[in-house]
Order: sequence, then C-alpha cells, then structure tokens
Amino acid sequence: MADGPELARADGLLTELRGRTADPPGVSRASYGEGEQIAHDMARAWAEELGLEIARDFAGNLYMTLPGRERARPRLMMGSHMDAVPHGGNYDGAAGVVAGLSALHRMRRLGVTPRMDVTVMAIRAEEVSWFPAPYIGSRAAFGILPAEVLDTVVRFDTGRTLGAHLAEGGHDPEAIRAGRRYLDPAGIGAYVEVHIEQGPHLVKSGQRCAIVTRIRGNYRYKHCRVLGEYAHAGAVPRADRRDALLAAVEFASGLDGMWARREAAGEDLVCTVGQFYTDPAVHTITKIPGEVRFTMDFRSYDEAVLADCHAELERLAERIARARAVSVELGEHTHAPAAAMDDGLIAGLRRAAQRLGIEAPEMASGAGHDCAVFASQGVPCAMLFIRNYHSSHNPKEEMTIDDFAETARLLYAMLDELVA
Amino acid sequence: MADGPELARADGLLTELRGRTADPPGVSRASYGEGEQIAHDMARAWAEELGLEIARDFAGNLYMTLPGRERARPRLMMGSHMDAVPHGGNYDGAAGVVAGLSALHRMRRLGVTPRMDVTVMAIRAEEVSWFPAPYIGSRAAFGILPAEVLDTVVRFDTGRTLGAHLAEGGHDPEAIRAGRRYLDPAGIGAYVEVHIEQGPHLVKSGQRCAIVTRIRGNYRYKHCRVLGEYAHAGAVPRADRRDALLAAVEFASGLDGMWARREAAGEDLVCTVGQFYTDPAVHTITKIPGEVRFTMDFRSYDEAVLADCHAELERLAERIARARAVSVELGEHTHAPAAAMDDGLIAGLRRAAQRLGIEAPEMASGAGHDCAVFASQGVPCAMLFIRNYHSSHNPKEEMTIDDFAETARLLYAMLDELVA
Repeated sequence: MADGPELARADGLLTELRGRTADPPGVSRASYGEGEQIAHDMARAWAEELGLEIARDFAGNLYMTLPGRERARPRLMMGSHMDAVPHGGNYDGAAGVVAGLSALHRMRRLGVTPRMDVTVMAIRAEEVSWFPAPYIGSRAAFGILPAEVLDTVVRFDTGRTLGAHLAEGGHDPEAIRAGRRYLDPAGIGAYVEVHIEQGPHLVKSGQRCAIVTRIRGNYRYKHCRVLGEYAHAGAVPRADRRDALLAAVEFASGLDGMWARREAAGEDLVCTVGQFYTDPAVHTITKIPGEVRFTMDFRSYDEAVLADCHAELERLAERIARARAVSVELGEHTHAPAAAMDDGLIAGLRRAAQRLGIEAPEMASGAGHDCAVFASQGVPCAMLFIRNYHSSHNPKEEMTIDDFAETARLLYAMLDELVA
Repeated sequence: MADGPELARADGLLTELRGRTADPPGVSRASYGEGEQIAHDMARAWAEELGLEIARDFAGNLYMTLPGRERARPRLMMGSHMDAVPHGGNYDGAAGVVAGLSALHRMRRLGVTPRMDVTVMAIRAEEVSWFPAPYIGSRAAFGILPAEVLDTVVRFDTGRTLGAHLAEGGHDPEAIRAGRRYLDPAGIGAYVEVHIEQGPHLVKSGQRCAIVTRIRGNYRYKHCRVLGEYAHAGAVPRADRRDALLAAVEFASGLDGMWARREAAGEDLVCTVGQFYTDPAVHTITKIPGEVRFTMDFRSYDEAVLADCHAELERLAERIARARAVSVELGEHTHAPAAAMDDGLIAGLRRAAQRLGIEAPEMASGAGHDCAVFASQGVPCAMLFIRNYHSSHNPKEEMTIDDFAETARLLYAMLDELVA
C-alpha cells in the first residue's frame, strides 16, 4: 500500500471533515450549503499548502492545478463532488477529491513536474437529494445546464431555487443562464474520478479497488402522485372507493414485477422507490387515503431499456387510473445518459495494476457520477472504485484508509505513466 | 319534515359549532381536547336552557336528563360522540347529540313528561385517530375500559397518555383504573344513536335516512412496520437489496388481493391502509428505503371473517419477510366486535316510518359506533342514519338540515311510542 505524508494528510482531512459536517446519524453536506462549503474550504487549504494554482468557476466548482511543463497541452483532470446526501456517509464524493489532492501532494513531494497541467476539481451539487436535477456542478462547468433549472429546481430543505442559492453563495447564476462554458472539452486530455463503490461487489469479492468500465444512466421521477378521494374507512364499499394508496401500491407492485421480468430476461436494470407517503397532515388509520406521493429512480447501462421502462410505466399508470377511478401522474422526469469509460485509460489502469500486483477487477457502476458528464462531452474518462462497506447514501457507509491507500497507489501509477 | 324551534336551535348549534372548531380544511375536535370541549359546553348550554338534569361521569361523558313519571324504570338513552377526526366534517358524531337534544326540546315544548327518564349522552373520545383505542368514552362509562389503556395509549398530536389528558381535563382516571361503572346496563331500557351515514348508500338511493340493522366489527393495527436496510439506489443489485418499501408494497398488494378474493366469495369485508410512509427524516429519491410504517383497518359484520383475515395476514407477513430478508411486524391490534341492533326497536322504527310515510331503508353500518358498546353490554340498541354527501372523516362531508329534520321526525315518532 501507498504511504507517505500525503496519505496521512488525506486521512486527517477525511477525519476532520466527518467531525465538522456531522449531522447524526451520519453527515450532511447540502449542495450549496454549509457542509459542502466546509469541504471545499478544506480542499482549498490543502491546495494552498501545496502552492497549487487555485480557481473557481461561476458555479462554485473549485480547480486546483499543478502546472505542467507544457501548459498548452490538454490537461489531465481528477475530481469528484463534495456534497453528501442528508445523513449520509463521509466518503461518497469527498474521497475522490482527496485522492486527487494526495496525488498532487505526492508529485510535489517527489519533485515531479508533470508534462501537462494536472487539475483536481472539487465539483458542486452532484447529489440529487438536495436539488432534484442531476450533475448541476459539472454540467454548469461545461455550459450545458439548462437555464430553466436555475428557476424551477428548489432545494428540498429550504424551498428556495438553485439560482437563489448560487447568488447567495457569491456565484454567478447569470453566467449559467447565458450558457457560458468554463471547461472546454478539447482542453481536457483525460478525466479520472476516484469514488467509493456504492454497491456490495468489492466487499463480496474481498478486493480493495476496481476499474470502472461504464456508468448506468437513469430516469428519475421526483414528483409522482396518485389522487383519489378521502373517505371513511368503514362505510364505503370496495367498488365505490377511489383509494389513492391501494392504487399507488398497485403501481409500485407493477414496477417491481416489471423489474423482475426484465432482469430474468437478461436486461440490466435497477429500480428504486425512495419516497412513498400518504399525506401526514391529514392521513389517519380510519380514512381512505385520497393522495399518495412517491419518487422513482430506475437505471440501466442500456439506454433502450430505460426508454422502454418509461413507456411501460406510463401505460401501467393509465391502466390503474382507469381501473381505480384515480389519477396517476408520473410528473416530470430527468434523464442522465449511460456512459462508457475510455478503452485506452482502462488499459493504462490494467497495466498499472499488473505492475503493482494489485487485484483490481473491472466493474460497471450502477450509480451515476460526474464522470458521465465529462464522457458525454467527449472527454476520455476513467474511474476507480474503492471498497466500501454497507453501501452508500446512509450513515453506515464505511471505507478503510488502507483501501483508500491501495486505490491511491493504483491512481499514482497510472498518473506516472500519463504525465511522464 | 319536522320544524319548530328545536330544529332552528339544532341548526344554529351545528353552524356555530362548525365556526368555533374550524381547522381548515374542515374541523378538528380532538378527543379530550379543545374542540371536543367546545362541543360539550354547547350541548350543556342547551340542556341548561331546557332545565334538564345534568351530570358528568369520571371520563367526562355528559348526561342530560329529562325526568320521567316513573323514575325507577330503566331509562331511555340517546347519544353519540362529539370529537371529530383531524380536518374532518362537522356532523360526524355531533349530529346525534344534537338530534337527541332536539327531541328533549320538543318534549319540553309540547309539555310531554315521558314515562321513564330520557337521557341524552354526549360521549367522549370515539374517534381512534386521536387515541388509538376504540370507544374510550362509552367503555369507560360501563367500567370496561382496560386500565392499561390509561398508561399505554397516547394522543398522536401531543404524545401524552390518555391518563394524563383525563387528569388535565378535570376527570378521574383513577376511577377508570379501578374499573368503576357509571352506567348499569340493567338501568337502560334502550339506547338510540342518530349518526350521519359514513358511506354513499343513501346518496345513491336518493333517500334521506335509514334504519341500521347491525354494525361492523373491526381489527385495527396502528403500528405496522417493515424494516430492511437503507442502501444506494443505483449500485445494489436486486438480489442484494433489503428494500422495505417494495416489501411493504407487496404486503399491501396482498391485502388488496385477499380483500378482492373474499369479497368475490361473498364475505363481508372492507380494508383500509390509511397511513403508509417511508421515513421523512431520511428518505430520498436515491436511497433504497430501510423502513416503512403503515396502518391497517379491516372490518366485517362477521367475526369469523375478521379472525381469518388476521391469520392470513400474519402468514403473508412471514412469507414476505423470508423472501425479501426484511422484518414485517404487524404490531399490536385492537378489536371492536360486530354488533346487532334490537329487533323490537327496529320494528318500532319501521312502524314509525310507515305512519309518517318516510322511506327509510334498512342498512348495515360499515363504520363502528358507540352503539356497539351498548349492544355488547346487553342494552337493546337502535341507530338511524342521516344521508351524508362525500363520505365522512374528511372536510367535504356534508349533511343538509332538511335531511337532519326528516330523520329527527322519525326519531320523535319512535320516542313518542316508547315514552307514552
């Protein structure tokens, strides 16, 4: 495993970050909120210690650059996000920025001047649990965040728009509205993202890290709603009910059945209904529910499967609405496309793993990552996963510093080849 | 239809009650809370105007008595409850007390001295949405409310026990704890409850009122819970998930299927899942839910069907828990038995309807009523339903004063025969 002062610094930063953003159980780092800002400030402090060039774009993404020998060459980028879901774990996002900074720290310590600029990017607002729109920070950096997102997407805890939060944070929503581009894909030779694995594969296989081959795309529905009619629980016969709960249950059960059927047919798919609730202001045990709200998130490596699922669920909603005399509204959805990692970069990682004797299986990413945005812009991309216990997006998420160090070692070896 | 000053007084009281207990949308009258007390105070004021004997038992039930010629005879009682579900309608409960008082007002006006005492009882705490235990007021009056209910049942909005609320209201929880009996079934010749219909039958048939033949019993589960494991929505494959939401959905879907099957087989049954929710403190669109809570209420005229359903649902819960690696806990339940109305009183109502030319169909009550407690104590019981639009337990509940008046006319005619 790697060691050296950069590892100790990384470990110390992550420990301090956990303490400063604690929100028991777990940590909370709201997108454009206090916890995310603390994380950015801690990354910047490390970059300043290393004497890196520091810049910030109009969306508040932070760029920390070790200048290369040939500054006109397309630069090498590393990065990840620093927000975290409410009551989530410490490492989802932050570990990637810290891994990137540790790589620059090591180059400084070893006196390496890379051939091209090497930049670590601390990205804003990746977690859709705060603002229900994917990849806000990275899309804004490339000038591809639709202007209406600024005015229509609100943070769930404050009820205020993304535009308002950006302005309050001292950023420049008007530049985003104008579609200005801070990052030019042509100026980026590669983007490498280190991230904890969000599933159980490495824990099951007993390996410390993995090389990612592709990233699932997703459709997300934040505002699904079933409207029926509130009525007395005892007195209304089955045929006369317009029960929103049993209609929503039939819909979710149909989603579950569709998933099981498609998986059995060999399609890649995961489906999640993360929120599902009768109205707490009026629901009681003796009242037939007149309204249910829920969310849906389904993901696949295959864009055709995603589109098929959407169409199938729309038909299911119509059928249930007719049969139960309710309305079933799926509402608006967002779509993050699936992405493939760069073959050349994967080969480089494979060579590095072999050189170091590290067992790093290849694996697809079920979760979405900012990396998918870089890939969508034509930037060659790679990702490394660090083993993580108890999944992510929950307070029990757990990465060991030894697994982080082993992954960093693989990252360093790949970089050594790229920057030579 | 009936008219006279007692009807105007009834109409005025109900209108004023709606205004004084408004909690938009609808009204709220918490059991042992402010709204219920306002209703009791308004009933008492009318009773004082009529010069009735007024008493209160240790549970705060209010008794308003017109003395009869033979005071040792078993008395005739009328009554209903005066609490109302959160954001419910104006008439569920209150209309019955008001109907009873209007009958005593009419006797006073006509100078009738009934043969036996005639008592109107304003009953406490019938709606289980406040305290999750059925028929608190009427069971306490008969000395059959289990002592542990005082300490274990809490009001949903205050989190404080029934015992604490009783003491705070100036009542006597220790008398209830000791099992003291205020009402002796042997001293009650009949109990008659007027109530709005809580289902749609009279609206559909175009009739103003109905004679109730029996009351559904129920099983109620206030604390059902499914526990799984929170995890990342994209990264965990189907087989590795312990998804509490899809498990709870399978359970509710199974309940719905059981209901459809039993109804098709001719069994009497209605099932309601009134509350169903992921944890608002931690749920997000990108997290597999680790916990779902829900309630269940199912009712039948047939006690055997209720017991069968309970057993079938316990088996269903076990099966789902095994298949999905979650726990499915139904928790404790309450049971209110089914009850039959008295044949002699039904015949009396039928005769009265015929005399008056009122079309009053016979009908079973899907909803539970305090009347079932009187019936369980061996008191001969009758109930009259008033037509009600838009079901009950919701703010759109709507009774017209003309339908109230027609029902009152039938009540008066039945009483005239009983008290002669």
